Amino acid sequence: MTTIPGGVCAPQGFLASGVHCGIRHNKDKLDLALIMSEVQCSAAAVYTQNKVQGAPIGVTKNNIAGGKAHGILCNSGNANTCNPNGTQVAKECCALAAKATGLAPQDFIVASTGVIGQPLALAPFVSGIPKAAAALTKTGSNAAATAIITTDTVVKETAVEFTLGGKTCRMGAIGKGSGMIHPNMATMLIFITTDVAISPALLQKALAEITVTTYNQISVDGDTSTNDMVAVLANGLAGNANVQEDSAEYQTFYQALHSICLYMSRAIAADGEGATKLLECKVTGAPTDEIARAVAKNIISSSLFKAAMFGADANWGRALCAIGYTPGNFSIDTVSVTLQSSGGSVMVCKNAAYNPYSEQEAAAVLAKKTIEILVDMGTGSGSGEAWGCDLTYDYVKINGDYRT
Amino acid sequence: MTTIPGGVCAPQGFLASGVHCGIRHNKDKLDLALIMSEVQCSAAAVYTQNKVQGAPIGVTKNNIAGGKAHGILCNSGNANTCNPNGTQVAKECCALAAKATGLAPQDFIVASTGVIGQPLALAPFVSGIPKAAAALTKTGSNAAATAIITTDTVVKETAVEFTLGGKTCRMGAIGKGSGMIHPNMATMLIFITTDVAISPALLQKALAEITVTTYNQISVDGDTSTNDMVAVLANGLAGNANVQEDSAEYQTFYQALHSICLYMSRAIAADGEGATKLLECKVTGAPTDEIARAVAKNIISSSLFKAAMFGADANWGRALCAIGYTPGNFSIDTVSVTLQSSGGSVMVCKNAAYNPYSEQEAAAVLAKKTIEILVDMGTGSGSGEAWGCDLTYDYVKINGDYRT
Repeated sequence: MTTIPGGVCAPQGFLASGVHCGIRHNKDKLDLALIMSEVQCSAAAVYTQNKVQGAPIGVTKNNIAGGKAHGILCNSGNANTCNPNGTQVAKECCALAAKATGLAPQDFIVASTGVIGQPLALAPFVSGIPKAAAALTKTGSNAAATAIITTDTVVKETAVEFTLGGKTCRMGAIGKGSGMIHPNMATMLIFITTDVAISPALLQKALAEITVTTYNQISVDGDTSTNDMVAVLANGLAGNANVQEDSAEYQTFYQALHSICLYMSRAIAADGEGATKLLECKVTGAPTDEIARAVAKNIISSSLFKAAMFGADANWGRALCAIGYTPGNFSIDTVSVTLQSSGGSVMVCKNAAYNPYSEQEAAAVLAKKTIEILVDMGTGSGSGEAWGCDLTYDYVKINGDYRT
Repeated sequence: MTTIPGGVCAPQGFLASGVHCGIRHNKDKLDLALIMSEVQCSAAAVYTQNKVQGAPIGVTKNNIAGGKAHGILCNSGNANTCNPNGTQVAKECCALAAKATGLAPQDFIVASTGVIGQPLALAPFVSGIPKAAAALTKTGSNAAATAIITTDTVVKETAVEFTLGGKTCRMGAIGKGSGMIHPNMATMLIFITTDVAISPALLQKALAEITVTTYNQISVDGDTSTNDMVAVLANGLAGNANVQEDSAEYQTFYQALHSICLYMSRAIAADGEGATKLLECKVTGAPTDEIARAVAKNIISSSLFKAAMFGADANWGRALCAIGYTPGNFSIDTVSVTLQSSGGSVMVCKNAAYNPYSEQEAAAVLAKKTIEILVDMGTGSGSGEAWGCDLTYDYVKINGDYRT
C-alpha cells in the first residue's frame, strides 16, 4: 500500500469541487463542497450518537438506507442543527443537487458543519449548488477539502493505492474537525471514496469496526458534536471482483480503510483548536482492549494533563489520576508511564509511583510536536490507542469568541 | 438558621490552627492545619471514587471505621499520592498528632493536597505537628482554612447557627478546591464541625445523601481527583438530645448540613482555577432527578460552553450539544434554555430551536459574575442543579506550569 496524491479524486470515476456560495460572509472562504461518482456507489456511514443531531444526518440516513449513493454535498459555516426548518433545507439541497446533476435527490449524502442553532436560508444553495456541479473536476479534492473546514488550520486530505485480485485500487478521503471533537459515532466530517467493488453491507461492517479504534478514540475537548459523520462511497470502477467477507482481499481493503481512518484521526487531533502538540497515548498490558482504549482516551481527554503537555511539564500524576477515574475492573498498582518523542524516552512512573528521572530529559521529550504517552498496565494483554492535543490559550481564545 | 462567623471553631468545643511546617518552600505560606475537638466526636466522611487514592484516604478510612474521631490533620503542597512510602508517612503523622495532643493515632482524620507523585519527607511534620498543636485556638479557623488551600484564590470558610430541641447548635466548615475538581465522591477537601449530638451512622447517612446533590454536582475541569474528602465531626457539646432519624430535629440538622455543603460547592466552583464567572445550571421538567442532574453537570462541564461563557457569548447551541450527549432516555424536542443573571433574563432556545432574542440583552446577562443557565426539559417533574465556572486563559496558565 502506497500513499498517493489526489484525495477523494484519486480513485477512478470521482470528481469534486469546492465553491463560495454565500453562507460565509467572507467571499474568499469556500463554503460548499460536492463530490460525485460517475456511477452509483455502495455507501456506508457512521454518525454521531448525540441525541441532538443535525438535520442533514436524518436526511442522509433515509437517502442511503438502501446502501447506495452517487454523491456527497457539504456546506460549512452553519451546522443546520436546531433549526425548525432544517430538515426541509437539507432535503431541498438534495433536490437542487439532483437537478444540477441529472440524478435523484436520494442519491445524495448531505452534511453541514458550523454554528448550531442559526437560521439557514436556502438562497445560497439555489445559486451555489449549480455552481459547484459546474465546477466538478478530477483535481477538485483540495477545493472540496477547503470548503468543508471551519476552525481547522490545515486542509485534511489523503489517498492510498493497493492491489486486490491483481487490480490496482485506490482510496481517498477529505475531512474536517478541530473543535467539539470527542466523537462517539462530531463536528467531525470525513468523506472517503474508493473505486473498489464491495457490497454496502460489508463496507458498513468494515467502517463500523474501524470507527471504534480510530475516530472514537480522538478527543479535542470532550464535547461530542451534533453533526459527526464519516461516509464512504465505493464505486467499483477498479474492476476487482466484489470483495467477499473473510477473504484476503477483505483484509487488504480493511487495512487500506484503517490506514485512511487512522491518518484522518491523527490529523484532526493534531489540528485540534488551538493545539500546538499531538498527543498519542498507547496503552498495553490491560485486562481488555476496551479498558485499554478507555484509559488511553481518558488520559488524552484530561484538561489538566493537556495543559501540562502545553507547558512541557512531565506532570505524570495527572495521567495516573485519569487512569484512576476510568470505569472498569482493574488494578493500578502495576501501572508504568513512559513519555516519548523524537526528543527521547523517559519512564516517569513505575508501579504507580514516582520513577526517578531527569526533569531536563523529560522537558526535552516534551519540547517536540508529537508526544507519545506509553502506559503499561502490567496486568493483561489488552491494548488500545487514543489521540488528542494540548490545551492552550488559543483554545480559549477561539471558543470564547467563535461566533463573531 | 443564621450565618455566623468562626468557621470550624464556631461550634462549642472546637479549636483550630494553621502553621508553616516546611512542605512548601515559601515560608509565608501556611501548609499544615489542625482541627481538634475537646471531646470525642461522631465522625463521617465521603471520599473520591478514583481508583488512584491518596495514602491518607486509606489511613483515615481505617481510623474512623468505628465512627469516632477527635481531630483532623491536613497538609497542603504535596498530595501524598503515588508515593511508595505514602501510607507510612500518613500513619506517622497520626502518631505525631497523637503524641502532641495526648490522644491515640486512630483518633485522627488525616488528609493531604498538592502535587501527585512527589516524594514526601516526614521531617516537616516532626517539627510542624507539635507547632500546630501548640497553636490551637478558638480563633484559628481562618489560619487552618489558609493552610489547606493550593491554587485557590480565596479562603473558604462558613458557619451557621440553628436550634434543636431548644438547644442552640452550630455547624462550621473550611474547604479547599480549585483544580482537578469533578468530584465523584475530589483535590477537594471539606472539613465540617458541629456541636450537635448525632450518631455516626445518621451523620454518615445525611452526608452521603447531600454529597449527591452538592459536591458531586460541581466541576472545574472534569478531572476527578485522587484526594477528595469531605469529613464531618459532631462533638455533641450543644447539649441537644441525640438526633433521631425521621424526626423534625433531623430535618433541621439536614438543612443546616445541606446549606453548609451548598455554600462550599458554590464557593469552590466560583473559585475554579482561572475562573471569572460562577455558572449555576438549574434543570427542571426532566423525566427523573438523575437525568436532570446529569444534564446540568454536562452543561457546566462542557469546555466549549465554558469558553463561550468566558467570552460572554450566548452560544446556546453548545448547551444543547451537551444535553444531547447526556446518557439516559429522554427527548430533546421540548427543551428550552434561558440565560439569567442580575443583568436580566433571556430565553435563547425554545423547543430545541433558536428563540429570537437580542444579542445585546444576552451580552448584558453574560457580563455578570454569576450566570444561571435555566433548562426546562418540558417532559416531567425531575429537577437538578450543578455548579461550574468559565474556561479562561488563566486556567491554561495555571495548569501549564503548576509544579514550578
